[in-house]
Amino acid sequence: MTVKDLKRIVVVGLGLLGGSISLAVLRSFAGAKVVGYAHRASTRARARRLAVATEVTGSLKSGVADADLVILATPICTFEGILGEIADVLPTGCIVTDVGSTKVLPHRWAARRLPNRVHYVGSHPIAGSEQRSVEFARDDLFDRAICILTTTRRSNREAVRTLREFWSELGCTIQSMTPAEHDRVFANVSHLPHITAVALTNANNDNDLKYCGKGFMDTSRIASGPANIWADVLLTNAANATRGIDKVVVELTKLKEAIGRGDRKQIEALLDKASVKRAALIKYKIKNKEILS
Amino acid sequence: MTVKDLKRIVVVGLGLLGGSISLAVLRSFAGAKVVGYAHRASTRARARRLAVATEVTGSLKSGVADADLVILATPICTFEGILGEIADVLPTGCIVTDVGSTKVLPHRWAARRLPNRVHYVGSHPIAGSEQRSVEFARDDLFDRAICILTTTRRSNREAVRTLREFWSELGCTIQSMTPAEHDRVFANVSHLPHITAVALTNANNDNDLKYCGKGFMDTSRIASGPANIWADVLLTNAANATRGIDKVVVELTKLKEAIGRGDRKQIEALLDKASVKRAALIKYKIKNKEILS
Repeated sequence: MTVKDLKRIVVVGLGLLGGSISLAVLRSFAGAKVVGYAHRASTRARARRLAVATEVTGSLKSGVADADLVILATPICTFEGILGEIADVLPTGCIVTDVGSTKVLPHRWAARRLPNRVHYVGSHPIAGSEQRSVEFARDDLFDRAICILTTTRRSNREAVRTLREFWSELGCTIQSMTPAEHDRVFANVSHLPHITAVALTNANNDNDLKYCGKGFMDTSRIASGPANIWADVLLTNAANATRGIDKVVVELTKLKEAIGRGDRKQIEALLDKASVKRAALIKYKIKNKEILS
Repeated sequence: MTVKDLKRIVVVGLGLLGGSISLAVLRSFAGAKVVGYAHRASTRARARRLAVATEVTGSLKSGVADADLVILATPICTFEGILGEIADVLPTGCIVTDVGSTKVLPHRWAARRLPNRVHYVGSHPIAGSEQRSVEFARDDLFDRAICILTTTRRSNREAVRTLREFWSELGCTIQSMTPAEHDRVFANVSHLPHITAVALTNANNDNDLKYCGKGFMDTSRIASGPANIWADVLLTNAANATRGIDKVVVELTKLKEAIGRGDRKQIEALLDKASVKRAALIKYKIKNKEILS
């Protein structure tokens, strides 16, 4: 199965990510049919109205029966049930992936539920926003995004290559990791910002917040994200997430102690360190064409 | 001294804020002369090249000698020295203000250093960015910004009214607070986001950060701000800042414990709380015309 053989692509779940994948496939794969599955009739109606897929279905099994590629874009904790439900009807050689933000458990569930004749590889396109639902779907959501593919020794090489080409066509730069490495890294760079945004928002009372400026708004933006989806992320990467929180608390405590004893040198050192790290990061992201200069 | 009597406005310090105030005054006050003071010859040369003020000077005392309004826009910890230096030459009835992010100490310094014939009122326009230096100055930086005026029982009412009109002309919505109330509120909604952005950045290693997406970039943006200016802010509002850190640590700990024991209900409740608070805040800001819908 090469990328050119992907004629029937099934997207399970039509939220912001699933809808955007559908639209991006319609944009980039002229010959392919995109089937979008949604559990709720109201979501299907909106997806049809917005024409996000070639076909929108409420029948999961018949939807995936002839699939070349199945992409799970529902909340992570639904994956195992869905994999179990579709396992018997998936055709031989079919590639299955997901776009969940954690990867260790999806790999475990795929190994447990899927037959050997289908090939599971994990995907994590680093794209999205605090918005939810198919109304915000965009065909350019993956332009300049990184997409992490998670693989193990058991991963089918051809399926990995095909999936790499698939995400590249959608505009992504591809990187590979093991599921464990993925979950460690993204607890730090993705789940932890979410956690600190939530903690910062909840630490403030609503009346004070009326006086906030752009700094608070940006620092807290992702705390507007959907609670149920993020609960799945944190629950399926609990050990890394709690270790990350410990590291942030250590850094907050360093700052608190320096401020408490009026230690200008140490405060400036901590602030400078962050500023220098961010400057290097921005330089890297510009060089890597992920952000525009 | 009404706002129409402000014929010579002196901006002390030509960084992002001082330069933007100068440009905004040039835009909004047709008859007024703006004198910009900068300590460094290189800053003065750049300010002249960018024409941010009617006149750029390196002589503080002669610059303020005929001033109707003096605005300090240097790092907070320089204020007391500057007030002491200019006290003797300020004309009777001159209004003195500053744009520092903390207000209790500036009020104390003004009471200690300035003669009764001049009127000090604190200002805090909630505008700026993580960028520094006069090159980033913009004449529209204050459009739709809140500006807090800090006053005490001793504040001269006419000076307060004039300053209120002055900032309104520059595009601000004005609110009044006592210095103590100001410092409590802005520790929470401004200094705390800065502290969490720094802690989050420093908690991550540079290699992991290469994989970050827009969420981390936004959550950490303000950590790129100038360390020396922010050190002054934190040092002059230490008690409120450290209390704020304690509150964030409490919220982080709640999340950590809920994740640790796999308590979906509590995780969702905490995430939902933040999301709801932010939705209410956005609604308020749109209604208040601070952000566009």
